[in-house]
Amino acid sequence: MATAAPVETAAMRRAIELAARGLGHTSPNPVVGCVVLDSHGRTVGEGWHQRAGGAHAEIHALRAAGERARGGTALVTLEPCNHTGRTGPCAQALIDAGIARVVYAVSDPTPTATGGAVTLAEAGIDVEGGLLADEAAAGNEAWLTAVLRGRPFVLWKYAATLDGRIAAADGTSRWISSPESRADVHRLRAAADAVIVGSGTARADDPQLGARISGLTDDEISQPLRVVVDSGATAVRPGARVLDGTAPTLIAVAEDADATHLEGLAPLVRLPRAAGGPGLSIPALLKALYERDVRSVLLEGGPTLAGAFLAARAVDKVVGYLAPVLLGAGPAAVGDAGITTLAQALRLDVTDTRRLGPDLRITATPLRPALPEEN
Amino acid sequence: MATAAPVETAAMRRAIELAARGLGHTSPNPVVGCVVLDSHGRTVGEGWHQRAGGAHAEIHALRAAGERARGGTALVTLEPCNHTGRTGPCAQALIDAGIARVVYAVSDPTPTATGGAVTLAEAGIDVEGGLLADEAAAGNEAWLTAVLRGRPFVLWKYAATLDGRIAAADGTSRWISSPESRADVHRLRAAADAVIVGSGTARADDPQLGARISGLTDDEISQPLRVVVDSGATAVRPGARVLDGTAPTLIAVAEDADATHLEGLAPLVRLPRAAGGPGLSIPALLKALYERDVRSVLLEGGPTLAGAFLAARAVDKVVGYLAPVLLGAGPAAVGDAGITTLAQALRLDVTDTRRLGPDLRITATPLRPALPEEN
Repeated sequence: MATAAPVETAAMRRAIELAARGLGHTSPNPVVGCVVLDSHGRTVGEGWHQRAGGAHAEIHALRAAGERARGGTALVTLEPCNHTGRTGPCAQALIDAGIARVVYAVSDPTPTATGGAVTLAEAGIDVEGGLLADEAAAGNEAWLTAVLRGRPFVLWKYAATLDGRIAAADGTSRWISSPESRADVHRLRAAADAVIVGSGTARADDPQLGARISGLTDDEISQPLRVVVDSGATAVRPGARVLDGTAPTLIAVAEDADATHLEGLAPLVRLPRAAGGPGLSIPALLKALYERDVRSVLLEGGPTLAGAFLAARAVDKVVGYLAPVLLGAGPAAVGDAGITTLAQALRLDVTDTRRLGPDLRITATPLRPALPEEN
Repeated sequence: MATAAPVETAAMRRAIELAARGLGHTSPNPVVGCVVLDSHGRTVGEGWHQRAGGAHAEIHALRAAGERARGGTALVTLEPCNHTGRTGPCAQALIDAGIARVVYAVSDPTPTATGGAVTLAEAGIDVEGGLLADEAAAGNEAWLTAVLRGRPFVLWKYAATLDGRIAAADGTSRWISSPESRADVHRLRAAADAVIVGSGTARADDPQLGARISGLTDDEISQPLRVVVDSGATAVRPGARVLDGTAPTLIAVAEDADATHLEGLAPLVRLPRAAGGPGLSIPALLKALYERDVRSVLLEGGPTLAGAFLAARAVDKVVGYLAPVLLGAGPAAVGDAGITTLAQALRLDVTDTRRLGPDLRITATPLRPALPEEN
């Protein structure tokens, strides 16, 4: 990537910003941004992939540019697609528009879409890949991870005291974390395709699990699928707030559970139980969600489900909200994860720490790759 | 403090730096630094209180300045003392040296030493207090807190995983925290007058509790008094590492404990048990240490003792080393602190966060004042 001009780097950075606008709206597609420069290096078109089934970023940007695209350069955060899905192939659209040069950040790893760069090059277009690849990949972290692993990207979020408690001894937990932290969780929800809680949380908190963001209208927020892992079909009852119809809901129950009381209330998915445990198989749960076009999941706990996901090595990222509070008693943030001695500990790399009001937000990535997953 | 010249502010900042060199060596005295400027504002003497029983900071600085002190200014981090203890009063020494102006940061709150400013003013010296008072008070935090509360300043240190565990389910805990964090703990030990552990830690880890700092010789490090709270006199056995003779040790046992096996091995202090519990009364423990000239304590846990100190509202500062590790099982950092519901939670103010290798170090101060203490 020695040949990208500064104006191209700036345009790619802009394209990455544009791509982020699609977060939460595009699954099962990636987020993509595109900037078209004319032959003098002036920006003449911008676009981003706004929703699955809608036009791709390149198409939006080419439409905005019109005839000014001819002889120009397209900066795209992801290798232009080569396949005809619900929309035509972007590679062909770029050729038809007379684009002279295409610079993309990240190669498309999906077998059906890849090959756009070759198609463009064969049409005589100057093609380069890799510009700001790390930044663009970070912006598409969930989708790229999902494609790589064949299951949704899992972000586990927890809120705990400095001594690791998520509630006091009597179960009270409102509010351990600050309003700033809770607002941040709503942003994570809006960016995720699905939010998952377990039966303990459903029973104790009756959460609504919707995303509410100050300053944004309901139309501007993409509500995640609300998933309750209710293995025994005992936690979600008629009248539960997740059944309020404001967003889709999915109840995951064990194959052998009696869930007649849930029929007609919400879609059910029946899954095998995990080997040796009462909970559901986490890989089976994630597979079922992937098949429903879910590419990113926000796991909101509680400790039993978090432990099961960690034991299955199915957590890709951790966001912890640490409240400057000490309790000395009460449930811990993580339950049994199959770890009995320190040598088995799950070690992470802290990638970011930030103050959110009085709280600390810690972002970390498990050091061991999540592959291979356990069943 | 509108009248302090920039050269005086710079000299006071230097005096605060000098004072810090005494940390860990001066109890029951405060740390104090002094800079003497001549009548042209040039630094002609520096000094700090190096050890209890030795010369005060002002005396060191005046000796260095000699005749050049005449007509000059003395910057002192603490109001010069007015009493004749093991050394003569500093106020008189400043008068005798012909100092024309004295600027100090923090007033001396001790009844026996206070009044130095008045003595100086009555001798015709221009006296001002309050310059960089917050910075100087922070440097003397332990001593000022001890004087205010009539008990040692207590810094509670813990090392835990992100989910609040101090060991795995099988008790393994070496090493949860990083070498950088462990080196930091040794610096805390060297700055403290005493290090306290409970019987659980003594039994499980057989800690040596000495301070070792890379680059410093044994002579340059002030080893803290090693205190084991061994209520039932069952944890410390002959041959324990705290009995190795490299630093003083004190075993605190209950009044009714059979401690005959400890006689001759280390000094014992017999204390009443806490009301309603098997542990010792924390206020009684701190009083006993204060009477032994201990002004600052590093509480190194474990969870039972930490819970007891927190319940007694006898923690002035918390330093937590958070390792980016998840365990899902194992003992928590804090045991029972008498908190059963969230409204009773001990809330803190995070004053600093720092990366130490892979770990996060969080420094926090309890929001509720530690007074009044419970018995």
